[in-house]
Amino acid sequence: MSLLVTGSIGIDTVEAPSGMVEDALGGSSVYFAYAASFFSPVRFVGVVGEDCPQDFLKPLADRGNIDLAGLEVRKGSKTFRWHGKYHDDVNQRDTVSVELNVLGEVGPSIPPQFRDSKYVFLANTHPDLQIELLAQLEGASLVVADTMDIWIGTEREMLIDLLSRIDGLVLNDSEAMQLTGKSNIVQAGLECSTMVRRFVVVKKGEHGSLLFVNGKVYPLPGYPTEKVVDPTGAGDSFAGGMMGYLAEQDIIDAETLYRAIAYGTVVASIELEDFSLNRFTEIDRSDIDARFAEFKELTTF
Amino acid sequence: MSLLVTGSIGIDTVEAPSGMVEDALGGSSVYFAYAASFFSPVRFVGVVGEDCPQDFLKPLADRGNIDLAGLEVRKGSKTFRWHGKYHDDVNQRDTVSVELNVLGEVGPSIPPQFRDSKYVFLANTHPDLQIELLAQLEGASLVVADTMDIWIGTEREMLIDLLSRIDGLVLNDSEAMQLTGKSNIVQAGLECSTMVRRFVVVKKGEHGSLLFVNGKVYPLPGYPTEKVVDPTGAGDSFAGGMMGYLAEQDIIDAETLYRAIAYGTVVASIELEDFSLNRFTEIDRSDIDARFAEFKELTTF
Repeated sequence: MSLLVTGSIGIDTVEAPSGMVEDALGGSSVYFAYAASFFSPVRFVGVVGEDCPQDFLKPLADRGNIDLAGLEVRKGSKTFRWHGKYHDDVNQRDTVSVELNVLGEVGPSIPPQFRDSKYVFLANTHPDLQIELLAQLEGASLVVADTMDIWIGTEREMLIDLLSRIDGLVLNDSEAMQLTGKSNIVQAGLECSTMVRRFVVVKKGEHGSLLFVNGKVYPLPGYPTEKVVDPTGAGDSFAGGMMGYLAEQDIIDAETLYRAIAYGTVVASIELEDFSLNRFTEIDRSDIDARFAEFKELTTF
Repeated sequence: MSLLVTGSIGIDTVEAPSGMVEDALGGSSVYFAYAASFFSPVRFVGVVGEDCPQDFLKPLADRGNIDLAGLEVRKGSKTFRWHGKYHDDVNQRDTVSVELNVLGEVGPSIPPQFRDSKYVFLANTHPDLQIELLAQLEGASLVVADTMDIWIGTEREMLIDLLSRIDGLVLNDSEAMQLTGKSNIVQAGLECSTMVRRFVVVKKGEHGSLLFVNGKVYPLPGYPTEKVVDPTGAGDSFAGGMMGYLAEQDIIDAETLYRAIAYGTVVASIELEDFSLNRFTEIDRSDIDARFAEFKELTTF
């Protein structure tokens, strides 16, 4: 099934205990698209500035099943830049600098040939823009969005309006608590799940995730990762693996959703083993399936 | 199989957002013994002072399969007391007061008829005392201990000596990191597992646990609990459910250990639904098995 993603494209500089990269390919839609492309063709929508290096998105183009017709190179604008630094405990990071640049301007438009997309992921951005993008995708059968603390704090009403229009929401545990004011994550997730049409996935980083659907809670552990080089993009890779699997299966029941978050977990666990998209460019679907099988074996009782 | 536990017996006062109890039955060996008794007969070893109310341990005696021959009422001594206060987020608590009393004196001795115990759990106490108790239990085939941050900080060498003599260790994630100096919990747990004979279980509270055995890591999520009244004793109930199940099965392979921590998770998830042992006194093995079946269904992919 057709799967469309809109989100950020970033020029990332990342410092971590095991090394650093400068001006590397990053951004939510980039990690998402690559992760999803292991399962399903992807339609990509995003904007860069004219400073963006030629061939910067070549890793996506080289996949063969990521359609970049929705990539806009905007004249007179600059590409989003992010510089982060991880602590020795890589669960902690500081943002050294952010330049919103083109992300602070009007959003991209959905190319006409993408408007019949059935599966849609609206990566984190201003909820106003997410609503605007959604309006261009009226034929979608499953729309899932990500959000973040800043919008919960400053654009709550607009965010709640967005949630009422979408099928699924992916967010962090702290964000679910912020959105609902509840400190128990099960209560928080259940309340979030009443704000959307179908389901909520609460991400807990290394501790795994919780799926809330049909009033039930399905807990999944994290994949036990001994080698974390760079967690940047893990959340977006999780969402990409999840949505890619759903689009491939084209079934949206609790069992398939749970298997989808298990695939998301596995894909994210591979992504964070190196900087940027480096690990992704070394693997194929069989590596994902092998780790999925191992994860299943480790967690069956 | 015979299962012996040694640990604290406490007169607990607990304040939580949903209420409080004063002078309630608590302590590591008490929670452990009750939890384990759903699976296996338990031999109980512990000390109270002469201030301990008559019939204070009646809930244990009433079980019918907890042998209290190892309970010492020490003349001239006072019972351990603990007063804790949970925050609105019940994952946070303050210790209002602690009176070590009898726990600061010499330990209990193991009654002769208990010395052939095959399964042994040494709940958290000074590692010196744990070693002393262990010396009285030379026929044990599986010895598991708990420990805590204070001993890792102040009695590291003695603790490491203890670990080399036991089969399994149960500890919190922060304690595993403290013991090894590693901030990655998988690395920390793997290193801990080289310090003992067989396995390590790292507890992560609501986030579940990790089993380290034979160089492999088995992650288990927490049971998703919407109603947490009082988390006191949840860790000891986890260990009790785990050890009770192992003693019942009398098999110590990775598969059985993993199922044992799933049982421990389920038993703990019931225990924290009310103060002290209140929930335990309302349930039987069939309630545990029903929740275990539900937990299995929620986590199968």
